[in-house]
Amino acid sequence: MASTEPFSVVIVGGGLVGSLAAVFCAKRGWKVDLYELRKDPREDASQSGRSINLALSVRGISALRAAGVEEKILNNMIPMKGRMIHTRDGKLSSQPYGIFGECINSVDRMLMNKHLLDSVETLPNVKLHFEHDLKQCDFDARKAVFARKDGSSITVHADLIIGADGAHSRTRQQLMRRTRVNFSQSYIDHGYVELTIPPTQDGDYAMDAHHLHIWPRQTFMMIALPNLDKSFTVTLFMPWSKFEAIKTEEDLVTFFEETFPDSVPLMGQKLLVQEYFKNSKGSLIQIKARPYHFRDRVVVIGDAAHAMVPFYGQGMNCGMEDCIVLESILTKHCGLPSSGRRPSADTLAAALEEYTNTRNPDVEAMCDLAMYNYIEMRSSVTKAGYIFRKTVEGWLHRLMPTVVIPLYTMVSFTRIPYAEAMRRWERQSKWFDLARWIGELVAISTVVGAGLYWGARWRGVRELLWRQN
Amino acid sequence: MASTEPFSVVIVGGGLVGSLAAVFCAKRGWKVDLYELRKDPREDASQSGRSINLALSVRGISALRAAGVEEKILNNMIPMKGRMIHTRDGKLSSQPYGIFGECINSVDRMLMNKHLLDSVETLPNVKLHFEHDLKQCDFDARKAVFARKDGSSITVHADLIIGADGAHSRTRQQLMRRTRVNFSQSYIDHGYVELTIPPTQDGDYAMDAHHLHIWPRQTFMMIALPNLDKSFTVTLFMPWSKFEAIKTEEDLVTFFEETFPDSVPLMGQKLLVQEYFKNSKGSLIQIKARPYHFRDRVVVIGDAAHAMVPFYGQGMNCGMEDCIVLESILTKHCGLPSSGRRPSADTLAAALEEYTNTRNPDVEAMCDLAMYNYIEMRSSVTKAGYIFRKTVEGWLHRLMPTVVIPLYTMVSFTRIPYAEAMRRWERQSKWFDLARWIGELVAISTVVGAGLYWGARWRGVRELLWRQN
Repeated sequence: MASTEPFSVVIVGGGLVGSLAAVFCAKRGWKVDLYELRKDPREDASQSGRSINLALSVRGISALRAAGVEEKILNNMIPMKGRMIHTRDGKLSSQPYGIFGECINSVDRMLMNKHLLDSVETLPNVKLHFEHDLKQCDFDARKAVFARKDGSSITVHADLIIGADGAHSRTRQQLMRRTRVNFSQSYIDHGYVELTIPPTQDGDYAMDAHHLHIWPRQTFMMIALPNLDKSFTVTLFMPWSKFEAIKTEEDLVTFFEETFPDSVPLMGQKLLVQEYFKNSKGSLIQIKARPYHFRDRVVVIGDAAHAMVPFYGQGMNCGMEDCIVLESILTKHCGLPSSGRRPSADTLAAALEEYTNTRNPDVEAMCDLAMYNYIEMRSSVTKAGYIFRKTVEGWLHRLMPTVVIPLYTMVSFTRIPYAEAMRRWERQSKWFDLARWIGELVAISTVVGAGLYWGARWRGVRELLWRQN
Repeated sequence: MASTEPFSVVIVGGGLVGSLAAVFCAKRGWKVDLYELRKDPREDASQSGRSINLALSVRGISALRAAGVEEKILNNMIPMKGRMIHTRDGKLSSQPYGIFGECINSVDRMLMNKHLLDSVETLPNVKLHFEHDLKQCDFDARKAVFARKDGSSITVHADLIIGADGAHSRTRQQLMRRTRVNFSQSYIDHGYVELTIPPTQDGDYAMDAHHLHIWPRQTFMMIALPNLDKSFTVTLFMPWSKFEAIKTEEDLVTFFEETFPDSVPLMGQKLLVQEYFKNSKGSLIQIKARPYHFRDRVVVIGDAAHAMVPFYGQGMNCGMEDCIVLESILTKHCGLPSSGRRPSADTLAAALEEYTNTRNPDVEAMCDLAMYNYIEMRSSVTKAGYIFRKTVEGWLHRLMPTVVIPLYTMVSFTRIPYAEAMRRWERQSKWFDLARWIGELVAISTVVGAGLYWGARWRGVRELLWRQN
């Protein structure tokens, strides 16, 4: 094959991760064809897609910056500086995310997706193909077959296929047919439904817009994120058995009045009932896989490689970070994007191998953290022990910003690899437990010592009195 | 639907488990259609299938008995009373499987499959359909679509679909599209290749026929099981990296001469080289899934539900036991087979639910035990500690046959549920460790006590000598 021929990459999936990957590949001078199953969202207003808004934090922003497509997003997001806890009796308390005022940001998934597709389209060496359904890959022959909407199918050549086609990825399925992939999928026993808190009659936000609102109820919870149109998208997460127990409007209203009383007037009973019964209930899946690649032929990224439960707000951020991690490994093996060099099969295979080896432990740690955070969000945030540790960690972090870093900060406000964040957190937990144990020992010793001292003094006083008598 | 209409079941897969399930279903008076992807093995001599022989033990035999199809199998199997360990320098040592002479049995997979198909065919309410490839299931509409060899496809009605279509089950795939299935597949880093030790020139077995032969080599191993034609089927299991390192005939012969020297003259160098390079290398997968069913519409059994690594010889036995467990749960919920009653959707759904709940922990325990047994077979069997425990457990088992039962005996020679066997084994291990610790303490005390005594006596003697001086 002539080395002057452009290197061709087929990207499967035109969501957030797929379109971002297209930008990175195009900047390498590769010929990029991006195939998306659905219609072009910029032309089709009917598509609601999946969840409406998402929490963008440092990893996602870093990836957008590295691709040079951050500006529009940064100008159209709503910073949330902490969690706003709603108790059952309607009391509010704010828990900041970071000691230095760090924020996560509510962004509109569709706005972001459209912007990324627009950005992709400005690049001369990318072609977008909507309504193309991946049917089959022949990695040995470097071919992929897509079905078109009219029933016809096309076979395209691809030096490399990048699968960014989500949790139920067809690319991953094809990868699993070609090579030995260790794979697991597990559903949690909870589902979710999306609801809305509309703007007030004056056209303003019905609650503080700079918080992620949480109604923690131990075994389940509801959250709300602000939108640019002054509404909030509310998501109720709870066990399937609870969903099944709500059969009538009355069941629903009673449940909400008892459980989330302050939210009912904000949503409006009519809208609540309408949306709850109309909107589909989603399930929550975790997917782990390894390897992500096969030789120099295919690699899966984003949810196609590692779907996680949404409780750390890291699904999208992690998927976007995949793009920078892959890009930096490609640079290491195949040279800078500006070199314009066509990667050899061996160097590309080595790069993808390194990608699997470095990225897999990190994203699997993140999957585990996301699972853990459900317990934190729905329950721990209301517990004194949790709040105490959070406060102490905050002080220590302020005193020694690089030595003690709260877990949430490491995950959301740094690019410390997830697995390292998890290890540091485990180490910090051990120190914290030791310190608490010493603190308790000191406290008990003090109380006992004081007791003995005052006992002795009291005996002295009595003796004195006795002698005087 | 009229209750007089026969209940129709579609079984996908005509292997050992599928054809056995067909017998059980037919005996319930159900209308059974069995669809198999491959040609009828009774008409097609070319099919070598997968592994040539298998180890049949109590669970498999019980299932064959319960179906009333055991006779021919029992008359055509070779009992193996223990493991014959081959050391590197060609020494042999026999380790019996059970203290009471219990045996596992080498059976020919094809003979067994053909016999089961013959047995199925004698039943009036079963139809066999070969060369039918399951394409899709519509569980809600109770339909299944099969592709035929001529390219046409048929849609069949099924009140219940039973998937017995192996580790890469299409039925399970369809189940996973319809309901939330927690699923994992993991490959071990080892592969296998099958070889042959032919009969001797006098037409006899080249080694003792009543043993399962093992060449344990710590990180890998080779085994051999006898066939009725006086040959042995040999399976070499080892890390993929070792397979990759053997590139030439010379590499192979050197490796065998160094590692399994006594096997080379038995196989014959020419046949060894020919088979090693010609025969395909198999990978070893473990599959876990839950649930196995969806409502009253579908259930998966055998490898389709739980593929395991082959090191406990339980894959087939476990799959056959699935049939009896399912049968007894069906009897509990839907009445005896002889009742001829058509099960209602609710009772059948409850039965399948109970099947998932009771069978899942057992087969997953078995998957774990099979993984563990690879270490036992390739390494532990050569260690003094293992042999000591095995011996002590044997004595205790002889003294108290129902109180202390070695793990291998529980798994292979009883129908104690696998998960219970695992729990009992863990309990026994704790007692064994305690006893060993006490034994060591007593031994040390004895040595120290004896030392002090003799020390004192020696002093006494010296004093006596001294006084005499």
